[in-house]
Amino acid sequence: MSIFEDKKTKNTPVSELGEFGLIDYLTKPFKNNNKNTIKGVGDDAAVIELSKDQYRLLSTDMLVEGVHFDLSYTPLKHLGYKAVSVNVSDICAMNGKASQITFSIAVSNRFSIEALEELYSGIKLACENYKIDLVGGDTTSSTSGLVISVSVLGEVEKQKISYRNGAKINDLVVVTGDLGAAYLGLQILKREKEIFLSNPGVQPDLHGNDYALQRQLKTEARSNFVKVLDDLNIVPTSMIDISDGLTSEILHLSKHSDVGITIYEDKLPIDYTTMNLAKDLNLNPIFCALNGGEDYELLFTISQSHYEKLKKDVDFTIIGHVTDKKEGNNFITKDSTSHPITAQGWDPLISS
Amino acid sequence: MSIFEDKKTKNTPVSELGEFGLIDYLTKPFKNNNKNTIKGVGDDAAVIELSKDQYRLLSTDMLVEGVHFDLSYTPLKHLGYKAVSVNVSDICAMNGKASQITFSIAVSNRFSIEALEELYSGIKLACENYKIDLVGGDTTSSTSGLVISVSVLGEVEKQKISYRNGAKINDLVVVTGDLGAAYLGLQILKREKEIFLSNPGVQPDLHGNDYALQRQLKTEARSNFVKVLDDLNIVPTSMIDISDGLTSEILHLSKHSDVGITIYEDKLPIDYTTMNLAKDLNLNPIFCALNGGEDYELLFTISQSHYEKLKKDVDFTIIGHVTDKKEGNNFITKDSTSHPITAQGWDPLISS
Repeated sequence: MSIFEDKKTKNTPVSELGEFGLIDYLTKPFKNNNKNTIKGVGDDAAVIELSKDQYRLLSTDMLVEGVHFDLSYTPLKHLGYKAVSVNVSDICAMNGKASQITFSIAVSNRFSIEALEELYSGIKLACENYKIDLVGGDTTSSTSGLVISVSVLGEVEKQKISYRNGAKINDLVVVTGDLGAAYLGLQILKREKEIFLSNPGVQPDLHGNDYALQRQLKTEARSNFVKVLDDLNIVPTSMIDISDGLTSEILHLSKHSDVGITIYEDKLPIDYTTMNLAKDLNLNPIFCALNGGEDYELLFTISQSHYEKLKKDVDFTIIGHVTDKKEGNNFITKDSTSHPITAQGWDPLISS
Repeated sequence: MSIFEDKKTKNTPVSELGEFGLIDYLTKPFKNNNKNTIKGVGDDAAVIELSKDQYRLLSTDMLVEGVHFDLSYTPLKHLGYKAVSVNVSDICAMNGKASQITFSIAVSNRFSIEALEELYSGIKLACENYKIDLVGGDTTSSTSGLVISVSVLGEVEKQKISYRNGAKINDLVVVTGDLGAAYLGLQILKREKEIFLSNPGVQPDLHGNDYALQRQLKTEARSNFVKVLDDLNIVPTSMIDISDGLTSEILHLSKHSDVGITIYEDKLPIDYTTMNLAKDLNLNPIFCALNGGEDYELLFTISQSHYEKLKKDVDFTIIGHVTDKKEGNNFITKDSTSHPITAQGWDPLISS
C-alpha cells in the first residue's frame, strides 16, 4: 500500500537471483569515489588503505530471529558470542586480525533488560577472547523479532592479505579443524524443540552430544589458525570462511580465482563423534561435512612449496588441489569416481 | 518459550532505562583491548587511530520498518538516500568526512527485485553526492518488515575532531540551516495516509508543501557546512547532529561537556514556510523547531573569538551560549522568561 500513484513496474521475486546474485546485481551500478577503497563488495571483507604497509578491513553481518536463529534453543549469551564470532571470522578469512566491532539490535518489548544483559555478556566474552573492542552500535525498537547487525574492523599487512581470487593451478586446498558437527548440533536442537512442543514438561535430552552442540551454539572464529599460518610464514593464495558449507565455499573460491578445484572424500576431516552422531540420526556424515555449514572453519589454498610445513599439523587438512578451470569442480568419492560439485551442494543420497 | 530450564530471572522492561540509558548500562562492563581505540561508545561515531595526524571514524545506524519509516508514504529511493544520509550525518557531527559505507538489509519476500533496485538507486545517488563508496553489506530474509543497517567509515584530522564533550563556558551555541520543517513534513504525510486509508481513490494533496516534504523525505547530511567551517578555520569545541530534536541534543552536549546551555526563542532559525505550515496544521512552530527532530542540522559550540567569521553567514545561526553547569539548561522565551530544558523537551502548550 502506498499513497503515491502505482508506477506499474514489474515485480520479479528476489528468489530469481539468489542471495549472491542479488548483491551482485544491486551493487553493479556503483563506482568507487575514493582512491583509498581497494576492494569493495565481493569478498569476505572490504579492503581500505590504512598505511604504506597495512590495509584496514571492514565487514558486516545481519542475524534475524526466525531466519538465522531460533531463541527457543539458542541461549542469548551464546547468540551474542556467535554474532561477534561470525564477523571476526570474516576478518580471519582475509588473513587479518579483528580490532573493533559495532553491535546494533532491534528488539521488541518482549525482551527485558535482564535478557539483553545475557546477550551482552556473550558479546563481552567474545570481545575478550578475540581481543577486540566494542566501539558503537544502535539500540532500537522492533515490531516483531530480534534483529542483530554487527560490523567489524580489522587490519592486515598488505603482503599477507588473502583474497578469494588468488588460487593458482596446482595449489593445495586446505581446511582447518573438522566439518559437519555444527549442522548435527542444529539437528539435535531441532529434534528436542519438537519433543518440547508436543510435551513441554520434558526437559531436553542433550546428553552425550556436547561437541556437536558446542559447535552449533558456541561458534568460534579461527583467529588462532591465522596466527599459526603467520608463525609458519604461510600466506594463503586464496581464503574464505565456511559459513554456508564446504561445497558452497569451494564454488566461491574457484569462481573468483577462475580455476577448478578437486577435493577427496577420504581426506575430509570429520570428528569421530560427528561420525557416530550422524549414524544415530540416520544422516550421511559426508553430506553433513560437505553441505552442513556454520562450522566457520577456514578454507584456503597454498602453494605446494608449503606442504612440508603443514602436513604434520593435525589442525590443518589437505583435502584437494587446484586445477585448470576447464576441469571444473569435482568431488572424488572413496571408490575413485568423480562427481561435479554444483551450487546445490553434493548430496550422496541423490548422486551416488 | 525456551527448551532450556527457566532461570527465574527478573524481567525489567527496557523502557525503564530508555534508549541512551540502556546503551550506557549494557556497554558499561566493556573494557578496551586495543590501544588504537581512542573513543568507543558515547559519541556520534567511534574514533580509531589512523595515522600520526588522522583519526578513523566509524558509526552505525539501524532503521526498522514501522518504527523509523512507513513505506506507505516513504518512496524506497528516498529511504535508501536517507539511510545513507543519517549515517554520513554522524561523521559530520565529528567534524569529519565520510568515505565508505556498508549497507545491509533484511527483507521479506513481498519485496521484488524492482523494489530493491529503487532502494539501491537512492543509495547510489547518496554515494555520489557525498563522494563515498559502497564497500559491503549483507542481504538476508526477514520474517516481517524491512530492516536496514548501515555502517559508515570516515576520517578527520586529529586537530579538527569535535567531540560532544568540549563545550566551554561562554562559548557560542550555533545551529546550521533551519529547524522544524522535517517534523511538519511528517505530519502532512501522516494526514494524507489517514485520508488515503479512509478513501483509497483520493490522490494525496501534497501541493504547496514542497519544502517540508523534502526535509522529511530527502534527508541531507550537512557535509557542506563541515567544509565551510574548515574554510573559515573554525573547529567547533563540541558538536552533535540534530536527529531527535534540538532540546534532546542540547541535553547531550551539556551533559557530556559538563556545562549548562541557554538558548533563545527569538534566535531559533525557522523557515517562513515552516511558520505558515505550522499555523495551517494548528501546531506551534517553536515546539516543532525545539522537539521535531529529523532535521539533521548540526548543533555545535564555538569560541567567542570566531563570532565575526560566522555572524554574516545566513546558514549559521547563533542561538545561545554556554554557561556554568550550575545554571542548568534553559530556554528563554520572547517575554524573557526562562524555562528549564528537560529530557521531555519543551512543550509551549504545557509550560507557558
